[in-house]
Amino acid sequence: MLLRMSTLFLRTLREDPADAEVPSHRLLVRAGYVRRVAPGIYSWLPLGKIVLENVARIVREEMDRMGAQEVLFPALLPREYYEKTGRWTEYGDTLFRLKDRKKADYLLGPTHEELFTDMVKGEYSSYKDYPVTLYQIQTKYRDEARPRAGILRGREFVMKDSYSFDLDDDGLKRSYEQHRDAYIKIFDRLGMNYKIVFAMSGAMGGSASEEFLAPTPTGEDTFVHCRDCGYAANAEAFVTPAPPAYTGERAAQQVLDTPDTPTIETLVDFVNANHGLGITAADTLKNLVVKVTTPGSDTAETLIIGIPGDREVDFKRLEAALAPGEPAIFEADDFARHPGLVRGYIGPQILADLGIRYLVDPRVVSGTEWVTGANEPGKHAAHVVAGRDFTPDGTIEAAEVRAGDPCPVCGQPLIIDRGIEIGHIFQLGRKYADAAELDALGPDGKPIRITMGSYGVGVSRAVAVIAEQRHDELGLVWPREVAPADVHVVGTGKENQIEVATRIAEELEAAGLRVLLDDRSSASPGVKFKDSELLGIPTVLIVGRGLSQGLAELRDRVGGAREEIPLAEAASRVLAAVQAESA
Amino acid sequence: MLLRMSTLFLRTLREDPADAEVPSHRLLVRAGYVRRVAPGIYSWLPLGKIVLENVARIVREEMDRMGAQEVLFPALLPREYYEKTGRWTEYGDTLFRLKDRKKADYLLGPTHEELFTDMVKGEYSSYKDYPVTLYQIQTKYRDEARPRAGILRGREFVMKDSYSFDLDDDGLKRSYEQHRDAYIKIFDRLGMNYKIVFAMSGAMGGSASEEFLAPTPTGEDTFVHCRDCGYAANAEAFVTPAPPAYTGERAAQQVLDTPDTPTIETLVDFVNANHGLGITAADTLKNLVVKVTTPGSDTAETLIIGIPGDREVDFKRLEAALAPGEPAIFEADDFARHPGLVRGYIGPQILADLGIRYLVDPRVVSGTEWVTGANEPGKHAAHVVAGRDFTPDGTIEAAEVRAGDPCPVCGQPLIIDRGIEIGHIFQLGRKYADAAELDALGPDGKPIRITMGSYGVGVSRAVAVIAEQRHDELGLVWPREVAPADVHVVGTGKENQIEVATRIAEELEAAGLRVLLDDRSSASPGVKFKDSELLGIPTVLIVGRGLSQGLAELRDRVGGAREEIPLAEAASRVLAAVQAESA
Repeated sequence: MLLRMSTLFLRTLREDPADAEVPSHRLLVRAGYVRRVAPGIYSWLPLGKIVLENVARIVREEMDRMGAQEVLFPALLPREYYEKTGRWTEYGDTLFRLKDRKKADYLLGPTHEELFTDMVKGEYSSYKDYPVTLYQIQTKYRDEARPRAGILRGREFVMKDSYSFDLDDDGLKRSYEQHRDAYIKIFDRLGMNYKIVFAMSGAMGGSASEEFLAPTPTGEDTFVHCRDCGYAANAEAFVTPAPPAYTGERAAQQVLDTPDTPTIETLVDFVNANHGLGITAADTLKNLVVKVTTPGSDTAETLIIGIPGDREVDFKRLEAALAPGEPAIFEADDFARHPGLVRGYIGPQILADLGIRYLVDPRVVSGTEWVTGANEPGKHAAHVVAGRDFTPDGTIEAAEVRAGDPCPVCGQPLIIDRGIEIGHIFQLGRKYADAAELDALGPDGKPIRITMGSYGVGVSRAVAVIAEQRHDELGLVWPREVAPADVHVVGTGKENQIEVATRIAEELEAAGLRVLLDDRSSASPGVKFKDSELLGIPTVLIVGRGLSQGLAELRDRVGGAREEIPLAEAASRVLAAVQAESA
Repeated sequence: MLLRMSTLFLRTLREDPADAEVPSHRLLVRAGYVRRVAPGIYSWLPLGKIVLENVARIVREEMDRMGAQEVLFPALLPREYYEKTGRWTEYGDTLFRLKDRKKADYLLGPTHEELFTDMVKGEYSSYKDYPVTLYQIQTKYRDEARPRAGILRGREFVMKDSYSFDLDDDGLKRSYEQHRDAYIKIFDRLGMNYKIVFAMSGAMGGSASEEFLAPTPTGEDTFVHCRDCGYAANAEAFVTPAPPAYTGERAAQQVLDTPDTPTIETLVDFVNANHGLGITAADTLKNLVVKVTTPGSDTAETLIIGIPGDREVDFKRLEAALAPGEPAIFEADDFARHPGLVRGYIGPQILADLGIRYLVDPRVVSGTEWVTGANEPGKHAAHVVAGRDFTPDGTIEAAEVRAGDPCPVCGQPLIIDRGIEIGHIFQLGRKYADAAELDALGPDGKPIRITMGSYGVGVSRAVAVIAEQRHDELGLVWPREVAPADVHVVGTGKENQIEVATRIAEELEAAGLRVLLDDRSSASPGVKFKDSELLGIPTVLIVGRGLSQGLAELRDRVGGAREEIPLAEAASRVLAAVQAESA
C-alpha cells in the first residue's frame, strides 16, 4: 500500500473543532480521520477507514483463532424478535424504532442476542452440535441520550458481538474464559492500557460479567480498584461490605424537635448541641423518594431508599440497581398525592403501614440505630433501630462509592478512577434461550436448555480510545498494528527530494510495507512536519535538506528519537525499525 | 484458512424453502449461505459471509486500482441533507424514515450522493484539489414494494457506491470511462455473464448512463439488443425511432358510428367491414388517461398518452418517462370529474380545449393519420391527422418494445431479454453540486461548479447473481475467486480416510489454499457427496474407498471431470488445479 498525499483525500485542520471536549475527538477530526454528520453519527475519511479496518482485522483474527465463526446479521430487524424477550419496550428511548411501508414495526439493532439465539435454534438440534460460538462485526444503533466525544459514544457505531452456546454451566464458563483470553490478546495488540473489572449486567439479566475498561480521565464509567488484592469493579457493580448485625440492647426511640435543620450538617449540629447526642452524619439515615417506571408500563411505583447521611446517592448506581426499571425524582405534586410522606422529615418507621417499599444501603443492617425523620414537620427521631423500629424490604446499591472505602475482598482502602468501556464479557445464562425455547436434544432423548454467553468489543470506539490513550500535544501516536501506515515518508525541499522520497517509498511498498508518502509540491516543510506529527504514523523518514549530503532523517514518533542516517541505508533502516517492533 | 465441517456452523437443507422462486434463492438457502429474517432482509451464515467478503474484496481491489479512495458514511442520516435536494419527498415510500428521541427526522440511506457531495465540499476548495473519486462499501436501505428472490432484491443490502468529482465535462467523461473499465474488470473477475446497456436515469437526473445487466430469465429488467450493430439498452432507455413526417395531402376528418367496438380488434374489424376502411391496429390511436402525482404534492395532473393501437403501454417505461412523477390509473370517479372525457371514445382533437396535456408515442409524427375516438359515445373518427387535427404537447416513451422492432441505430430487428442490474454508471452532472453549491476556486479566482458521476455495484446482489448464473441441478458452482474455499477435501469411510483427508487439508492450508474439509464422522458418503455438490467449491478431493489402494479422487465441480489419482500426488494435483485456474 502506498498512499500519496498529493492525491490523498485528506485535509488536516489547524483549529480544534468547536464541539470537541476530549483529545481523541479533537485529534481525530483535526487529523482528518473522521467527520461529523449528526450528533453521535460520523463519517470515516480514508485514513480513518484504514484504522477502523485495522482494528476490525485484529478483532477478527483473534475471534477466528479462538474458534468463533463469523456471521452477519441485518441491522434492520422486525419487532417480533425483541417483543418475545420484552426488549422492544425495555430498551425505552434508546431503541431506534421505525415502520416500513406496510406499517410493520422495525428497529435498528442495538445488540443481537435474539437473532443469534434464533439462528442457532434454526440450524442446530442435537447435543452433538454444541458448543458453538458465533460472532459478527457490524454496525449497531443506540439512540443515546447524550452522544458525546466524537466516535467515543456514538449513536451509530461498529461493534463485534459474539455469543457462546453451551450445554451446561461448565461449558459456559469455558467459553467465557476463552473470550476473556481472546480479549486480552485483542486489547494488547491494540496497544491499549486497560483494566478488567467486575460489571453489572444492566438490562441484560444474568450472572458473571466483567468489563474491559480503558482508564482515561474523561471516561464515563467510574470504577474502583484495590492495590492490595487486585479487586476491581465498575462502580455500578461494587458491592458494599455489610458490617455484622448488632444484637445488643438499644435505647428506646425518641422524637426530637429539630427546627431549621434543612441539611444533614445542620441536623447533626443541632441534635448534638440541643439534644445531647454525639453523632456524625454517618449516624443519620436519609430517605430518598423516587418513582420507578418499568418500560412499557404507564404507572410508577413509589420507592424509598435509605442511606447513611454522610453519603450521596449515585444515580448511575441507583439506575443500574433498578434496571430495567427507570427511577425518577419524586416531585412536589407526587408528594401532594402522598400526604403521609412529610417532605424533609421522612423516616422508615411508618413505611410498612403506608405500603411503600423501602430499600436500604447494605450498611443499614439489623440492630444499627439511626437519627432519621420522625414523619412530622420539624421533628426527627433518634435511636431508630433497624429490625426493631422498621424492617427494610431489602438492600440496594445506591450510595456513592468513595476513594478510601474498604475493599470488599481485603478491606484495604479502594482507589477510584474513570474509564471507558472497551469490552464486555457476560455469562448470560438461559434468559434468551428460555424466551426462544432453544433446546438441544440430549443423548437420552430429553431436551437440554442451552446456556449462553454474550461478549462485545466496541470496534469504532476502540479507535477513539487508542487515540485517547496514545497522543501527545503534537498529535496522534498510533501503535503500529493500528496505524494507517507503517511509515510516513516525507519529501521536503525544492530540489529532487520529492523524487527521491517517492523512490524510497516505492521501494518500501515493494518490500511489503504500508507507506504514506508526503509528495505534495505545494506544502512547506513546516506544514509537512506538523501534519506528520498530527497524523501519528509510528515511523517517519524525512528526505529534506540533508539530501545533498546523502542524508535522510529517521524519526520515531513514539519515542521521539531522531537520527540522521545515510540515504543509501534509508529503506533498510525503516524496514528494520518496522520489523523490530512487529517481532 | 481451513474450515472443518465437523464444527462448521452449517446445516444444509434437503428441501427447497417454500418462498423461493428463483434458483439462487433456493440454492443459497439450501446450501446454508443465507437465512431469511424478514421480507428482503437476510442474515449471512459463515460460508455466505466469506463469499460476500470475497465479492467485496474484488470490488475494493479494482476500485483502489483505478485510484478511487475508500471512505465510510453512516447509514443513519439526518433529513436535512436529503431535504436540500428534494429527495426526502421524491423517494416516496421507498425511503425508510424514522425519528430519534428528540423527534428529529432521520432516514436510512438508500444512496449517498448528498453525503459525498457534502464531504468533498467540506475538505476541498481549490481547482488543484480535483479530480477526486471516493467510494464506500456499505449497507443500504430501500423499502422496496416487492422485495423478492432472497438477496437478489433486498431491503437491506450491501452496495459499493462511488462518486467522481471533476472540474469539467471532459474530466467527468474520463472518470466515467475509468469506472466503466473497472466495472468490466470486476464483473469479469466475478465470473459473470453480463451486458452493458444504455440506461435511464430514474429519479437521479443527469445525462449519460449505462447499466451492467446480468441476463437471466428471472431478471426484473427488460433490455433490448441488436445482434448486428451491438446496440443494447434497458427497455426504459430504449428510444423509439420516429418515422419521417408526412407532408402530403390527407382526407378530411370523418366521424364514424362504431357501436359495440370495445377493443381495438373489434374496432378495426368494424370500420373495415362497415366504413370501407382497410386499416390495421397500427393505424388506430388509443388514448390512455393517467393521473400523475409528484412526490410531496397533494394534487395530481391529468395526462393523456396516445400510442398506436397495436401496442400495449409498458408501465415501467411509462413510470421511467414520468419520474419522479408517479402515474396512476384514471378511475371511474376521476372520469366523473372530467365530463369532457368520454370513456372508451377519447380522441386528441379536443384535448387542447380541455387544457389536458397530451403526449404521444414517437411514431405519431406530424402528418400521420389515425382512427381514434370521436369524444362521443359509440363514435370514432377517421383521418385524424397529427399536426392538423391535434397537436401533441410532446412525445413519451410509454409503448412496449417488441422483439423484432427496428434497432434505433441500424434498423435491424432487435432481440429482447431479461436481466438483473448488477452495476450502474452514471454521469450525474451538476444536480447535486448545484444543491450543495459545490465549487472549486479556479486559477482566475472565479468559482467552478463541480460535475459529478455516480457509480454503483450491488455487492450482496452479486452473490445472488453469480449463484443464478453458475449452478446446475445439483447445486452451486462458484468461480474460484468468489468461492468460500479453493478446495473441498472430503473424507468418507470407516477406516482412516478422515485422518488422511485432514492431513492433506492441513498440507494444502499450509501451501496457502483456502480449504473446506469434510471431517464429519457421522455423515454417510452419499450425504457428503450431495453436500459437496450443493456447496459448489470448484475443486473437490475425495479420500474414500480407494484409500486402501493408495488412491484419491479429484473432481472438477465446474467441468464435471472426475479422476482417480495417486494419494501421494493429491496435494500437488490440487495445487496445480487451483493455480492453473488462477493464472
